[in-house]
Amino acid sequence: MSTLFLRTLRENPADAEVASHQLLVRAGYIRRAAPGIYTWLPLGLKVLAKVEAVVREEMDAAGGQEVHFPALLPREPYEATGRWTEYGPNLFRLQDRKGGDYLLAPTHEEMFTLLVKDLYSSYKDLPLTIYQIQTKYRDEARPRAGLLRGREFVMKDSYSFDISDEGLDASYAAQRAAYIRIFERLGLEYVIVQAQAGAMGGSKSEEFLSPTEVGEDTFVRSPGGYAANVEAVTTPSPAAIDWTDAPAAHVEDTPDTPTIETLVASANANHPREDRPWTAADTLKNVVIATTNPAGERGLLVVGVPGDREVDMTRLEAALSPATVEAANEDDLKAHPELVKGYIGPGVLGPQARPEGVAFLSEDDATIPYMLDPRIVPGTRWITGANAHGKHVFDLVMGRDFIGDGTLEAADVRDGDEAPDGSGPLELARGVEIGHIFQLGRKYAEALDLRVLDENGKQQVVTMGSYGIGVTRAVALLAENNHDELGLSWPIHVAPYQVHVVATGKDATVFDAAAGLAADLEAAGVEVCYDDRPKVSPGVKFKDAELIGAPYILVVGRGLAEGTVELKVRAEGSSEALPVDDAAEVLIARVRGALGA
Amino acid sequence: MSTLFLRTLRENPADAEVASHQLLVRAGYIRRAAPGIYTWLPLGLKVLAKVEAVVREEMDAAGGQEVHFPALLPREPYEATGRWTEYGPNLFRLQDRKGGDYLLAPTHEEMFTLLVKDLYSSYKDLPLTIYQIQTKYRDEARPRAGLLRGREFVMKDSYSFDISDEGLDASYAAQRAAYIRIFERLGLEYVIVQAQAGAMGGSKSEEFLSPTEVGEDTFVRSPGGYAANVEAVTTPSPAAIDWTDAPAAHVEDTPDTPTIETLVASANANHPREDRPWTAADTLKNVVIATTNPAGERGLLVVGVPGDREVDMTRLEAALSPATVEAANEDDLKAHPELVKGYIGPGVLGPQARPEGVAFLSEDDATIPYMLDPRIVPGTRWITGANAHGKHVFDLVMGRDFIGDGTLEAADVRDGDEAPDGSGPLELARGVEIGHIFQLGRKYAEALDLRVLDENGKQQVVTMGSYGIGVTRAVALLAENNHDELGLSWPIHVAPYQVHVVATGKDATVFDAAAGLAADLEAAGVEVCYDDRPKVSPGVKFKDAELIGAPYILVVGRGLAEGTVELKVRAEGSSEALPVDDAAEVLIARVRGALGA
Repeated sequence: MSTLFLRTLRENPADAEVASHQLLVRAGYIRRAAPGIYTWLPLGLKVLAKVEAVVREEMDAAGGQEVHFPALLPREPYEATGRWTEYGPNLFRLQDRKGGDYLLAPTHEEMFTLLVKDLYSSYKDLPLTIYQIQTKYRDEARPRAGLLRGREFVMKDSYSFDISDEGLDASYAAQRAAYIRIFERLGLEYVIVQAQAGAMGGSKSEEFLSPTEVGEDTFVRSPGGYAANVEAVTTPSPAAIDWTDAPAAHVEDTPDTPTIETLVASANANHPREDRPWTAADTLKNVVIATTNPAGERGLLVVGVPGDREVDMTRLEAALSPATVEAANEDDLKAHPELVKGYIGPGVLGPQARPEGVAFLSEDDATIPYMLDPRIVPGTRWITGANAHGKHVFDLVMGRDFIGDGTLEAADVRDGDEAPDGSGPLELARGVEIGHIFQLGRKYAEALDLRVLDENGKQQVVTMGSYGIGVTRAVALLAENNHDELGLSWPIHVAPYQVHVVATGKDATVFDAAAGLAADLEAAGVEVCYDDRPKVSPGVKFKDAELIGAPYILVVGRGLAEGTVELKVRAEGSSEALPVDDAAEVLIARVRGALGA
Repeated sequence: MSTLFLRTLRENPADAEVASHQLLVRAGYIRRAAPGIYTWLPLGLKVLAKVEAVVREEMDAAGGQEVHFPALLPREPYEATGRWTEYGPNLFRLQDRKGGDYLLAPTHEEMFTLLVKDLYSSYKDLPLTIYQIQTKYRDEARPRAGLLRGREFVMKDSYSFDISDEGLDASYAAQRAAYIRIFERLGLEYVIVQAQAGAMGGSKSEEFLSPTEVGEDTFVRSPGGYAANVEAVTTPSPAAIDWTDAPAAHVEDTPDTPTIETLVASANANHPREDRPWTAADTLKNVVIATTNPAGERGLLVVGVPGDREVDMTRLEAALSPATVEAANEDDLKAHPELVKGYIGPGVLGPQARPEGVAFLSEDDATIPYMLDPRIVPGTRWITGANAHGKHVFDLVMGRDFIGDGTLEAADVRDGDEAPDGSGPLELARGVEIGHIFQLGRKYAEALDLRVLDENGKQQVVTMGSYGIGVTRAVALLAENNHDELGLSWPIHVAPYQVHVVATGKDATVFDAAAGLAADLEAAGVEVCYDDRPKVSPGVKFKDAELIGAPYILVVGRGLAEGTVELKVRAEGSSEALPVDDAAEVLIARVRGALGA
């Protein structure tokens, strides 16, 4: 410790709100270089190297072959797949001295595809899984929480190449199994959830989420085992309803009903439903959304959801990816005078049925697409805006009186919603994505023309899988999941040191004994941090040891006169006296046992 | 080999002129992604990892502590030291989504300095040496020779921090010794040469050059042990000469003397020197040079060198760094009508003595700086241009008739030149820089205000050293120095595999025996590539094995019927029969012996 390049801090850095970020900086593991960009100090680099080693071993064991791509790449391959544009402002773009366009790669599907195309030409060369552990770049709008969402970060990304769908399934299963082994070896809790593939394209897609309160991702679980990223939750559509006996639609004055609650109250007071009271779920809320596609073009969209639900912008954006979305602003509304704020109804939107008595635009004039929540099926009866101030239309029946341009998953998902597979009520939780595996299929192979000859001598497009692990993010999550108010408390497999030896006081015999113990431990292959600082108080040394978080803390101090040293187990907060002569042997056995070595 | 991600090529890639580049691509070690930017394939990554491991071990053994900086860095620190501008077009610059200026770091002096400033504040924290093995970026004008001069490359860079000059000397010596151990372990020939620090600033500076014909750097050696990069060679100035008896300067018509040779012939014919014939070394050649500083401002300079020397633009550029230089063009000359092409003399240049009979500008009008070769000392007599077409001035004496604005190392260095330390005649050779160590001194610490409290409680500026190794370049040089017409031939410490087992024919017993030998070798910790391809001819397998270049090739084939296998030593081209039952044991012993394990 007297020479270790380390300065621990007692105060949390001003920009750190999340415990792992605070503690990794305070304990001297990382240091901020720019927003979302970190320098790794000696302690941090040791943890990172251990995480990388676990990932590498399991990738190799699963038959993956390691390669390493550049981070700085030419535009052309990303142009060919459309991602040069699709990534929008998340992509770091630059030019070289000759004016050639380059990017800092956020992910490498294109390059892996082109490499295999370059080297391989026959089905005999497949299956193939190749991977890299490499530094990636994403110009996040809001880098946050230290390593949890950075702009320069390390990922393991692997890609599988198969001639058949069955082959892809097998490659996918092998990576999935390797991911499970990796997270279990790291001691990192995870939930496998169904996911959307997002900007990557593709079909089958699962995320490994680490449950944590500080996570930005929301996911759901059901008692029956369903789990999905909230973006991937699909809403079961109820069966259509016979509308034969439904009343005709009728427009009513509904003054002073600015909210769903006041509208429902007014409806029940003035226009009661024949069979039961109206509820918020009987109202149809139409929300105007502005979309921006990767080329920067802005468009409008109206989303209809039951009035007891909110539009979840995250789910909506995932459904419309790669476009981004936001609530429409005043200018957007001004450009469409047919949209009467607070009273928007299907009458001025999209394609539509044409009941009598309801104000409608002609089809040519209705220029804004109208997308409906999957719950809004034919035969459902709604109270909704009549496109005139202070007026609502009642008993507007989907299918009879209006239709939409399609369905869209935009309504929020709630605790208690039924799982789409019928496996029970959903429970919401928060997490951080630490792994993502998905079947790309033939999207990239087609875009970049990766074909091989099959057994019959015919050209076949290769099918691919893509598999990622956030390596630096895993370090952050390990810190997040293993800390207390005193500091970090690492699982032994990833700890920078397994034992922290603290010598206290000024007595030379104490320092000699501590140095001897540290040497004995190191000779047995135990990784030791020895706090040999001569003029630092025991209190400061203990605080530093607890902050740094090695699993075992061995204190050599006053007890030495009686022949004992003190062993603390960081995670348990326990403490026991050991005879000094046995201490090394006991501790070596414990470390080896904990490592399973 | 049947599953290894590899495709060897029989033809050299079109863009590869250097053997290491050709062979690393053909043997499937690397693949070009963009000019000067390469992907590492499985074989290449194995070699790179071994080189990195040697570097890391020796850095750690020398007391270095490993850290890892980002490649993507904000502009500000590099602005503070002037390097944002000084690097000119060699720096990859970009902006983030908020318009902030960033760069891809070509080297990290600023960040290391700021990190130490951030964490340390006392002399007690020093000395400190920290290092990283990290990906760097330089937008080379002419990336070439594969990994030898790339735009994305891996470097090990370390930095030492000391309170005193003596401390810096000790840190420098420790790194120098570690470098020697690294290159010796890697089996990489090197010469330590004196060097210029270039854009880095600083004082003491040495390069580790690997001698090779394909090198871009020229260096010199003397029998007495002097060695220097050609840019760093200093020209000894002769003693000044008494000019009391020198004839007065006189202008003569010298028609038809466009070259130094014709001028010397004309001078000897028409104006013979009293003591001996005139030679080219008696003429003073004045060369107009255009300089461009990092801000892009163009200026002119005239360099005077003896007529038997050429201006070496590389030496000149090093002397004027960070400016770049080129020969002046027609426009430059038109802007200065006082420069009479072919007849330029000191009379119109710089500050000057004023002999009678020679055309001179006034001091105010002479706006072009005039820099002299160190051989042009007071009392030397010259024939040079008289600033009029067809006229030269004779017996123009330095100090009496003209002076310069200073001296400049611009003349070429030649075989046979005397070493500056008097250690004998210089010999020129070519090499590639694989390491560079230099004493930065206080330049960066001052620019970035890195101070610590000394023993007396006073603020002291820290003094620094900077030490780099081109890690990916070392891989290229190892390939360059260890190949023949058949392919690569790696030193065993860095070979991707130590043994290449080749099974030939179609006989299942041959494949069984080969697989068994491969397994026995691997069980003993030997790294094996087993060519198990069933339908590939022996000839192709041998060619691939020789191309890939593992040190030992073990052939299992026809001899097996008589109980023998064949062991080839790649570097020696030798071959011997071994009893199949002893082969594994013999080979394990050889590999261990060669590894020194």
